[in-house]
Amino acid sequence: MSLDPVALAQDLIRRPSVTPADEGAMDVLQQALESAGFACRRMRFGEIENLYARRGTAAPNLCFAGHTDVVPVGDAGAWLKPPFAGVVEEGVLYGRGAVDMKGAIAAFAAAASEAQVPGSLSFLITGDEEGAAEDGTARLVEALAAEGERIDHVVLGEPTSSSRLGDQIKIGRRGSLNAWITVDGAQGHVAYPQQAANPIPPLVRLLARLQGRVLDEGHPGFQPSNLEVTTIDVGNPATNVIPAQAKARLNIRFNPAHDGQGLIDWLIAECAAEQAGFSGKVGLVAKLTGNAFLTEPGPFVEVCAQAVEEVLGRRPELSTTGGISDARFIRKLCPVVELGLVNATMHAVDECTPVEHIADLTRVYAALIARYFTAFG
Amino acid sequence: MSLDPVALAQDLIRRPSVTPADEGAMDVLQQALESAGFACRRMRFGEIENLYARRGTAAPNLCFAGHTDVVPVGDAGAWLKPPFAGVVEEGVLYGRGAVDMKGAIAAFAAAASEAQVPGSLSFLITGDEEGAAEDGTARLVEALAAEGERIDHVVLGEPTSSSRLGDQIKIGRRGSLNAWITVDGAQGHVAYPQQAANPIPPLVRLLARLQGRVLDEGHPGFQPSNLEVTTIDVGNPATNVIPAQAKARLNIRFNPAHDGQGLIDWLIAECAAEQAGFSGKVGLVAKLTGNAFLTEPGPFVEVCAQAVEEVLGRRPELSTTGGISDARFIRKLCPVVELGLVNATMHAVDECTPVEHIADLTRVYAALIARYFTAFG
Repeated sequence: MSLDPVALAQDLIRRPSVTPADEGAMDVLQQALESAGFACRRMRFGEIENLYARRGTAAPNLCFAGHTDVVPVGDAGAWLKPPFAGVVEEGVLYGRGAVDMKGAIAAFAAAASEAQVPGSLSFLITGDEEGAAEDGTARLVEALAAEGERIDHVVLGEPTSSSRLGDQIKIGRRGSLNAWITVDGAQGHVAYPQQAANPIPPLVRLLARLQGRVLDEGHPGFQPSNLEVTTIDVGNPATNVIPAQAKARLNIRFNPAHDGQGLIDWLIAECAAEQAGFSGKVGLVAKLTGNAFLTEPGPFVEVCAQAVEEVLGRRPELSTTGGISDARFIRKLCPVVELGLVNATMHAVDECTPVEHIADLTRVYAALIARYFTAFG
Repeated sequence: MSLDPVALAQDLIRRPSVTPADEGAMDVLQQALESAGFACRRMRFGEIENLYARRGTAAPNLCFAGHTDVVPVGDAGAWLKPPFAGVVEEGVLYGRGAVDMKGAIAAFAAAASEAQVPGSLSFLITGDEEGAAEDGTARLVEALAAEGERIDHVVLGEPTSSSRLGDQIKIGRRGSLNAWITVDGAQGHVAYPQQAANPIPPLVRLLARLQGRVLDEGHPGFQPSNLEVTTIDVGNPATNVIPAQAKARLNIRFNPAHDGQGLIDWLIAECAAEQAGFSGKVGLVAKLTGNAFLTEPGPFVEVCAQAVEEVLGRRPELSTTGGISDARFIRKLCPVVELGLVNATMHAVDECTPVEHIADLTRVYAALIARYFTAFG
């Protein structure tokens, strides 16, 4: 039987599944997949709904990954269309999640429903991508790996297209880490600096060294790594007072020239260097969001790129730019490529996509499935 | 006729003259001085009461300077004694202003009331020392200079004593300036630094250079100059956002090795150096609070020091440490020495002084007046 991807996208949008709420979104998808012959397993971690669905038992197993949760509406009064009504007007589907990424889920579900393949098709869907991402894909991947479930390749439906559908697919992402630096000194009067310990000088010296390091000049397929100090806060209102504490936060986006733990070790060493000779305390908390990864151009990337070219007549750029996604968890399991709708309105007011894009993306995914099993089946 | 300095101090404390309020404090002093034969002139600038009083027309004119305004009570519930009652208990006078500096005003008024001198005695009293200090001593000094009024030497009654009465007098003060630096960049996503202009790196580089300069190793009679960055504030809550603006503030306390305008010129040059090559804007606002000054040890300083030694049996330390005072305005007119009560409780809860200290300080001031006219009369 055949699924209407636009109708399914509308149904999904009508469930206001703002992270961590589900509001029945996963049920809508599960019913659609079950009607298409998929065996569905709900995997609940914490308060998060997750779903693993599979049709077929043979290898290879091509998996579509995505998330049913969406970001908040933001300024609700600024929306011209209701954010959770799934309205289609003049060929455009409006609503939170239309492009990020309920539209892509619906397109893949529709493509999969019609496909006859010599191996298996599966879905790895979470309700926790836009939030902490702790009880979603990370744990799904871990649980499936522990069971010995084999997934050979993953297509992640993030909205990777930039200005035209299919103009860009992601074959890797830079890694990301955040660090919080807190320097505790001793408060005092500016006229008596020897009776105080100003926490700002060690913090400024430390940040000057950190931001002054050229991490690299780039890496094959990647832009250069960059460190950004994102905030410094002291909050001292008095002109004649040396403050007791100074805090800063930084973010590093890094290509595969670096390993996250290696960068954290560097931060620890630089903090220790500043601690030496300072009577106060230099504290560091660092958290790795994800390491960099690259799905090397090769047969799988070609399957994805050629499916786009076959249906849309354009060769997609193979990109590694932008933020992070759940691909950072999936790549521990198998190669992953990200391919989805145009991201111009994602997270914005009046998020929307032409319904034609959903139909086109459905055809791209169908071509991708066919080419995949020709290449790997 | 003779004045009771403790009774006068109590009367002054009972007027809650928290800057800029006067509450009749200046009237209390004026009546006391008029009863001692002083010709009083009220000079009101803005909302501030000021007083210039003089007895005698001959030179030299030894002037006592001070302020009747006080700092706020702070945590009123924490006071064990009412702050504006002028209570004396077990030989201790309690109240806001007891040491800073209504007690010293009363002591000098009492000493002056009994003194017969071959020249003139005068009082230069403001109600705006603890506040903006814009409509007080600065304008008084300017107005008197414009009139050609000659004042030869000034004793300022700030509480300069540290642990014992008379253990320290101030013969100079360091200068002070504040500077506010604002760097405006362009907000953006940390993953796309080339589309943003992070204002933090230029600010950190600038502050690192400023705080890294050793201004001097000290100056005869002075501690080294010091620059303290007192706050840095960005207030960016998002880990993945490059902020649009970063602000910092610094204070420089400088000895006579530096001129305030010269330091400001240096700050301007360093900001300009950082501006070069930065697409955003590096802004600076600098405000000179006062230049450094020194009343060189010599006959006048000796008169003050020997008066202390004669009455109290201890040689005072000649200090230039601490914050700023109205001496920075007076020194434009003539040499100034600061000599007053013990500063342990100034600005604090339960500000207080032994009444014996007021009596002793009255005798010190009397000895100072006598020695002054012997030396300069």
